[in-house]
Amino acid sequence: MDQQQLRTLLEQVREGGVEVDAALERLRHMPFEDLGFAKVDHHRAIRHGMPEVIFGKGKTAEQVEQIARRVLDNASNLLITRTSEEVAGRIRSIVSEAEYFPLSGAVRVWRERTLTGKGVIAVVCAGTSDIPVAEEAQITAEVMGNDVDVIHDIGVAGIHRLISNRERLCKARVIVVCAGMEGALPSAVGGLVSAPVIAVPTSVGYGASFHGLAALLGMLNSCASNVSVVNIDNGFGAGYVASLINRL
Amino acid sequence: MDQQQLRTLLEQVREGGVEVDAALERLRHMPFEDLGFAKVDHHRAIRHGMPEVIFGKGKTAEQVEQIARRVLDNASNLLITRTSEEVAGRIRSIVSEAEYFPLSGAVRVWRERTLTGKGVIAVVCAGTSDIPVAEEAQITAEVMGNDVDVIHDIGVAGIHRLISNRERLCKARVIVVCAGMEGALPSAVGGLVSAPVIAVPTSVGYGASFHGLAALLGMLNSCASNVSVVNIDNGFGAGYVASLINRL
Amino acid sequence: MDQQQLRTLLEQVREGGVEVDAALERLRHMPFEDLGFAKVDHHRAIRHGMPEVIFGKGKTAEQVEQIARRVLDNASNLLITRTSEEVAGRIRSIVSEAEYFPLSGAVRVWRERTLTGKGVIAVVCAGTSDIPVAEEAQITAEVMGNDVDVIHDIGVAGIHRLISNRERLCKARVIVVCAGMEGALPSAVGGLVSAPVIAVPTSVGYGASFHGLAALLGMLNSCASNVSVVNIDNGFGAGYVASLINRL
Amino acid sequence: MDQQQLRTLLEQVREGGVEVDAALERLRHMPFEDLGFAKVDHHRAIRHGMPEVIFGKGKTAEQVEQIARRVLDNASNLLITRTSEEVAGRIRSIVSEAEYFPLSGAVRVWRERTLTGKGVIAVVCAGTSDIPVAEEAQITAEVMGNDVDVIHDIGVAGIHRLISNRERLCKARVIVVCAGMEGALPSAVGGLVSAPVIAVPTSVGYGASFHGLAALLGMLNSCASNVSVVNIDNGFGAGYVASLINRL
Amino acid sequence: MDQQQLRTLLEQVREGGVEVDAALERLRHMPFEDLGFAKVDHHRAIRHGMPEVIFGKGKTAEQVEQIARRVLDNASNLLITRTSEEVAGRIRSIVSEAEYFPLSGAVRVWRERTLTGKGVIAVVCAGTSDIPVAEEAQITAEVMGNDVDVIHDIGVAGIHRLISNRERLCKARVIVVCAGMEGALPSAVGGLVSAPVIAVPTSVGYGASFHGLAALLGMLNSCASNVSVVNIDNGFGAGYVASLINRL
Amino acid sequence: MDQQQLRTLLEQVREGGVEVDAALERLRHMPFEDLGFAKVDHHRAIRHGMPEVIFGKGKTAEQVEQIARRVLDNASNLLITRTSEEVAGRIRSIVSEAEYFPLSGAVRVWRERTLTGKGVIAVVCAGTSDIPVAEEAQITAEVMGNDVDVIHDIGVAGIHRLISNRERLCKARVIVVCAGMEGALPSAVGGLVSAPVIAVPTSVGYGASFHGLAALLGMLNSCASNVSVVNIDNGFGAGYVASLINRL
Amino acid sequence: MDQQQLRTLLEQVREGGVEVDAALERLRHMPFEDLGFAKVDHHRAIRHGMPEVIFGKGKTAEQVEQIARRVLDNASNLLITRTSEEVAGRIRSIVSEAEYFPLSGAVRVWRERTLTGKGVIAVVCAGTSDIPVAEEAQITAEVMGNDVDVIHDIGVAGIHRLISNRERLCKARVIVVCAGMEGALPSAVGGLVSAPVIAVPTSVGYGASFHGLAALLGMLNSCASNVSVVNIDNGFGAGYVASLINRL
Amino acid sequence: MDQQQLRTLLEQVREGGVEVDAALERLRHMPFEDLGFAKVDHHRAIRHGMPEVIFGKGKTAEQVEQIARRVLDNASNLLITRTSEEVAGRIRSIVSEAEYFPLSGAVRVWRERTLTGKGVIAVVCAGTSDIPVAEEAQITAEVMGNDVDVIHDIGVAGIHRLISNRERLCKARVIVVCAGMEGALPSAVGGLVSAPVIAVPTSVGYGASFHGLAALLGMLNSCASNVSVVNIDNGFGAGYVASLINRL
Repeated sequence: MDQQQLRTLLEQVREGGVEVDAALERLRHMPFEDLGFAKVDHHRAIRHGMPEVIFGKGKTAEQVEQIARRVLDNASNLLITRTSEEVAGRIRSIVSEAEYFPLSGAVRVWRERTLTGKGVIAVVCAGTSDIPVAEEAQITAEVMGNDVDVIHDIGVAGIHRLISNRERLCKARVIVVCAGMEGALPSAVGGLVSAPVIAVPTSVGYGASFHGLAALLGMLNSCASNVSVVNIDNGFGAGYVASLINRL
Repeated sequence: MDQQQLRTLLEQVREGGVEVDAALERLRHMPFEDLGFAKVDHHRAIRHGMPEVIFGKGKTAEQVEQIARRVLDNASNLLITRTSEEVAGRIRSIVSEAEYFPLSGAVRVWRERTLTGKGVIAVVCAGTSDIPVAEEAQITAEVMGNDVDVIHDIGVAGIHRLISNRERLCKARVIVVCAGMEGALPSAVGGLVSAPVIAVPTSVGYGASFHGLAALLGMLNSCASNVSVVNIDNGFGAGYVASLINRL
Repeated sequence: MDQQQLRTLLEQVREGGVEVDAALERLRHMPFEDLGFAKVDHHRAIRHGMPEVIFGKGKTAEQVEQIARRVLDNASNLLITRTSEEVAGRIRSIVSEAEYFPLSGAVRVWRERTLTGKGVIAVVCAGTSDIPVAEEAQITAEVMGNDVDVIHDIGVAGIHRLISNRERLCKARVIVVCAGMEGALPSAVGGLVSAPVIAVPTSVGYGASFHGLAALLGMLNSCASNVSVVNIDNGFGAGYVASLINRL
Repeated sequence: MDQQQLRTLLEQVREGGVEVDAALERLRHMPFEDLGFAKVDHHRAIRHGMPEVIFGKGKTAEQVEQIARRVLDNASNLLITRTSEEVAGRIRSIVSEAEYFPLSGAVRVWRERTLTGKGVIAVVCAGTSDIPVAEEAQITAEVMGNDVDVIHDIGVAGIHRLISNRERLCKARVIVVCAGMEGALPSAVGGLVSAPVIAVPTSVGYGASFHGLAALLGMLNSCASNVSVVNIDNGFGAGYVASLINRL
Repeated sequence: MDQQQLRTLLEQVREGGVEVDAALERLRHMPFEDLGFAKVDHHRAIRHGMPEVIFGKGKTAEQVEQIARRVLDNASNLLITRTSEEVAGRIRSIVSEAEYFPLSGAVRVWRERTLTGKGVIAVVCAGTSDIPVAEEAQITAEVMGNDVDVIHDIGVAGIHRLISNRERLCKARVIVVCAGMEGALPSAVGGLVSAPVIAVPTSVGYGASFHGLAALLGMLNSCASNVSVVNIDNGFGAGYVASLINRL
Repeated sequence: MDQQQLRTLLEQVREGGVEVDAALERLRHMPFEDLGFAKVDHHRAIRHGMPEVIFGKGKTAEQVEQIARRVLDNASNLLITRTSEEVAGRIRSIVSEAEYFPLSGAVRVWRERTLTGKGVIAVVCAGTSDIPVAEEAQITAEVMGNDVDVIHDIGVAGIHRLISNRERLCKARVIVVCAGMEGALPSAVGGLVSAPVIAVPTSVGYGASFHGLAALLGMLNSCASNVSVVNIDNGFGAGYVASLINRL
Repeated sequence: MDQQQLRTLLEQVREGGVEVDAALERLRHMPFEDLGFAKVDHHRAIRHGMPEVIFGKGKTAEQVEQIARRVLDNASNLLITRTSEEVAGRIRSIVSEAEYFPLSGAVRVWRERTLTGKGVIAVVCAGTSDIPVAEEAQITAEVMGNDVDVIHDIGVAGIHRLISNRERLCKARVIVVCAGMEGALPSAVGGLVSAPVIAVPTSVGYGASFHGLAALLGMLNSCASNVSVVNIDNGFGAGYVASLINRL
Repeated sequence: MDQQQLRTLLEQVREGGVEVDAALERLRHMPFEDLGFAKVDHHRAIRHGMPEVIFGKGKTAEQVEQIARRVLDNASNLLITRTSEEVAGRIRSIVSEAEYFPLSGAVRVWRERTLTGKGVIAVVCAGTSDIPVAEEAQITAEVMGNDVDVIHDIGVAGIHRLISNRERLCKARVIVVCAGMEGALPSAVGGLVSAPVIAVPTSVGYGASFHGLAALLGMLNSCASNVSVVNIDNGFGAGYVASLINRL
């Protein structure tokens, strides 16, 4: 029941066409989602400049293709994360300019490229093995309408590399930092800048990295106050949060 | 070596009072922190509207008082977290308007109350036991110059309480959500709004809550894409990150 | 806004006293919880024979007393879990027949004793140290309107004790089983009966019991198919779930 | 020794054919399982309307087929969980109407379809990736004689989807809720209904979901009092417990 | 129903005083524990030379005293573990020769001192901080009728201390080894002897010892094949198992 | 330096062929392992009736074959655990009567079949999936010279199966109990018998079994005092410890 | 900005070609890494005699080859860890004397063989399965310019093997000890020698070894004071730290 | 049996006073520790310039005093870690110059102050709360004969503080780095210097620091190759290892 339907009902009550009790009954059993405007409101908020995203993992190529077709009916842009080259081929047969990113397994349709983010989002990673996660954050932030500055391989063990990128980092409005192993980079970056830092622990490492747990705990315990954290390897989430912040 | 000293050195070089090689040597061995302006630059960035914060835990009342006196020489505002009523008394003897918050153990000097945050920060908590953590987030955000809207006790087990606060939540520019036990509230709030959500797991609970671990893992795995997470019970960190975002 | 208020609004619309647009606006911004009947509906469902329960831990005696007074205005029965003897005294000064259970720290006002549960709930515990948790389950189930049969100290290391209680167990419609250490009793009980078994791991034990983790994992991995599990030491939850089932 | 043999023995005692001492000796050394009627009694209880279930994992196709043949000699219905398409083929060659469910890997022979459950069991899942676990719960509950209402994809991040299914949920006598990632759905559902909720954490997720641990802990710490939990991915167990409850 | 009652019943059947059906019914509903001889049988096995043991932790002095009085009516020996000096005083007022062991918190009544163990049980500990656990093992083994040889402070970091005790170790029929920190001693002892080694991890240590977890895991992974393990700090269990073995 | 060499040295000293200082020097630098008799002594102890065992995992077929050939030069019996059918073939080409056990991956040469164990070792497992581990324990105990009684599938969820095997269990001198999932069987068996019980947690299970951790913790926390534990899936270790005990 | 550029700037200031303010500005914004000499300084320190090392895991053969080519332009020696035989082939086509170590997956170019370490580094491992990790430590230490003494298979369960190598161990200036399972060897070695011991837990084991966690915890809790620890399976790190120490 | 006794035995053999067989027997049963010179050798190695250290935790003041008196009979220096002010008083009554360090709870007698370490040991900590652990490392290294340079409060969140201490760090021969929370400092220091770094995780932090686990994992996963790690809060161990290295 959308706003119009509700108005109609009230007018019918006013005009005597519907009894108060009947109206009461209809309102009483009106499922929340049928308020209509509420849902539209909600969805509009969510979709404001944010293209649809399909989490590809655990879906068949067929399923992903079908959802993608439905989305592309109404939307210029689309992001599919953690999917396969096969899916990329299927999407390319729908939209020829679809890109495939083999490192992160993402497919992106990026036709509408208006910048909606107000500043630069820096996406930083500690080592070359963290690049797939950083790439997911980068392409998410780009397709969400942001200018993204990518800086690879500035881990804390070579702190001069970090220092030498200080200016680029300071120019960013939001920073995504991806790091595996000990996950120390967000603290170091956080100490250099005053922008909010979204930390992404990666599962890069072995032994006592416990598939990213070491990096995750490190980031949660960051001594820099401007750091918040997303799930291990969740480049998408970091890019998404950064995009929301950059639109403020 | 601050900016003035560097200028003096360069002028001495210009006037021939210092040889190029000698100047080179002094610059070469100049410790980074002695660049002065760099540090000032850095600190200015950090302190932009952000009052000093003293982490009180593990410091004696004497130590906290001394640091506080030094800070209050130059600053209008001061926040001390996780401290005792005794410290509150000492601070009150310096600045009579100092407030003490027994739930979260915070002391606040809040003389300069200009709003620097651009919108409202909502601070939400799931249950009454989460209030101490929410309070820490609230008073941090306030002293950092924000208009804070506090909403208590809207946990997911009574989802109508959450729904009924939907409008207030939607008006916020950033939202801090504190929850213990299963830590589900950030996901539910995140699904209702399009603002960034800073989730704070609390150690509220018993048994398999494992002192906040359950809530922490829940929040890291949130199915809402606009959620990032800080350490267990870290109300201060959440309020700080939210303040940084709200100033953008 | 309860059902009556909504009816009044609709009647005002009908009679022309309120404009359609104004009514629309009031309905539109009507917070969900103000639908009234929904909440009543919801609460009625929840409260069907179920007295209010106050989780005492982390609340001051003053706070608990105030909540209790409000509850007792409208209700015959009240359960307060994990509270202190001091609270018991305060409640007794309101309702003289209030009972205090020092093992589990519960206070109970049990004036309305109609049985709403259709059968017997058996509450079983493995060792004497598990009695406080079993007691919490027992008094919860009782105050929720159930006939409770309590069987203590029938752990699996003395399996004849279990076998000898087989008939009593088989007569129960629902069974709550509390056990610490290795938490094996729910499997053994589950294998003897065809009733649903609610397993409560307790924190009884030391060393590798890890405060109830061993019992919890054991119960989750039960080879008996009729076992479901609640949190460590959550006697209340088990008694509550059992009561819900026994009313079906 | 079954009931008949025991009767015979007693008759022999009565008729003097067996000495009291000899009878005493035979009874004394009579292994418990040889009481016969006890076991039958026990098994009858267990099997009341509950078809045999074979846990397929870790058994060869040959083994499963043999057990299935033995079961199907006496039973109309059969459920095999976590097995392969090969097994499905073998069972179909015995009973042509055997169904195979590739998502959950179950094989079901469902010839006797009398409803023994008194109400509806709702089987709910949070996301599409949780469907295999929900399917296992659904087909278990169905073959156990229940009317099952399945509701997919109503996770807490889109809370309007949950609210809009409130009526269907409220009609259920027992509810099974499957969710991975943060596992918040059982709390949200539990808050909406007054029926018992069986929560099934799923291993859906990545990183800090730790193969379902996050969801498991979340559910154990649920702030809704009507929730109990089974093992990660244990759709069968949830469907079984729900069936037991629904027959009460 | 004990052996005598069963005989009476059978005699009544024989004499026609009880019908076969009535006898059948009584036998059928006869709870297992009422077989009497079975329980006696079972208990006799358990108690063979093994005095009663009361686990003192979590019991009041009053409760322990009462149980102790009942035990001492029939028994010469008694062991109470993890109890207090107050309990020791109460027991001493019953049996003046009761000993109190403050390190391990044990009380022992050891009047019947016949050796039932066939050889020597060596009780070994790695460091002086492990002595309380070793003491519990020692006094358990002694009161169970064993000749115990105690060797303290022969941790692996001073391997010559271990080697120099090789002969004493080789003379033991069973060896209990208590060690905290890295828990390496059982492997080293196990490599020197051919007797079974019962390893007891202790909670001695700090930091990454995680209250005995490090020692526990170390012992479970022992490269010596003659090592089995009991719970952290479970000196009693080790002494008990060793006693059972030594009686073989 | 073996006993003969030492005698020769001493004789040379006696006869003046070697100076005291030279002899002293040789003895002083004599590495411990060169004492010879010590090592022989040690090894003799270890090997007393115990055939060599090769841990096959992580060794190539070639490596295992070579070690096996060396062992079989001097020994009648040989056990290879966790190896492949290929290795079995190679061993069979050396000793035609070598057996291969595909469930546990063991190869056994069992030519010398004298019983050295004094009683029966019972090897018990909870479910059919635990059989591979039980098999490893069984064939280890057999090849170590024991009469082994194997009882499968008597898990605690069907406690009558356990009870009905009570007599066989009570006849055993040592009992090995293998169980996965909740690992409750050792407690139940331990309560029925007075023999030492060696518990083997198995990795059987899924979800919160965490690859045997649940069973391991359960067994370490056993409420039966006669239980000690070996590593997850360590059937060999349990069989070995049981054999050592049975020879006492 | 390297040293030369800085000199030029200062000379321009001196000669009046650049204003003091302009020079100040250039210095002020001069990124740290452009100081040049600082970075060179830093790198020189790091590279002192230490050849480049490429961590092969997660890099394609192509990527490794390209990095290797760049390194080999300037360097005699190169170590690639955790790589494949394919990479070995590619490197051999550049430098024919490149060695491949299939156990540890390392490729080594070792042309410059000057010893820069002052003493012997002993590399010890507990069992044959630990050899791959020990090998990585060994070839790292060798290519870093050390004389390495390798001792395999001296685990604590056969302590005479350890004792008999005491002299070789005591001759070493630094000792690397690799051990899986219970990880006890570093403590035992540490007790025998006065040299620093670098302990490497290996992932060798099964069940409760939890992929090296047991060994890691054991080593961190070593009762020998001369032990420090590196990550699980990190033979390279241990060899590297040992090399740094041996050059002191 | 010391060297003299062995010589006497050999001389008796030579002179015919002792038969070869008798000598053989005495040598054969000679316990290893009775070789005497071996043990002395060993201890001399351990004690080379290293004063005795008493681990005070878990010992009574009386016990510590007694051990200390025995040590001080022969030694100039003594270190007692983790003890109380009461112990400090007792030691001061023996040696008036004994120092007490209340932060770390250490007592030190430091009369012999010869430097045996060849260079400077830097002891660094990340925050002021880490000072107690750093202090333990410092006073250990000092009493072991080292020149120690202490640098407090240079955590990675203020990386300029670290950079500005680069020269002091580069002058150190060995560096001890203490850090809690995310434990990132050792990586950052390790990247700046070429000296070996001993990392000490501290239990400083809260929530997801899990009492030092986060810092420990971070350090074990350090991306700097010159880092090895000791137990949480083990300042003594780090100071000891650093001292051993500095004497090389």
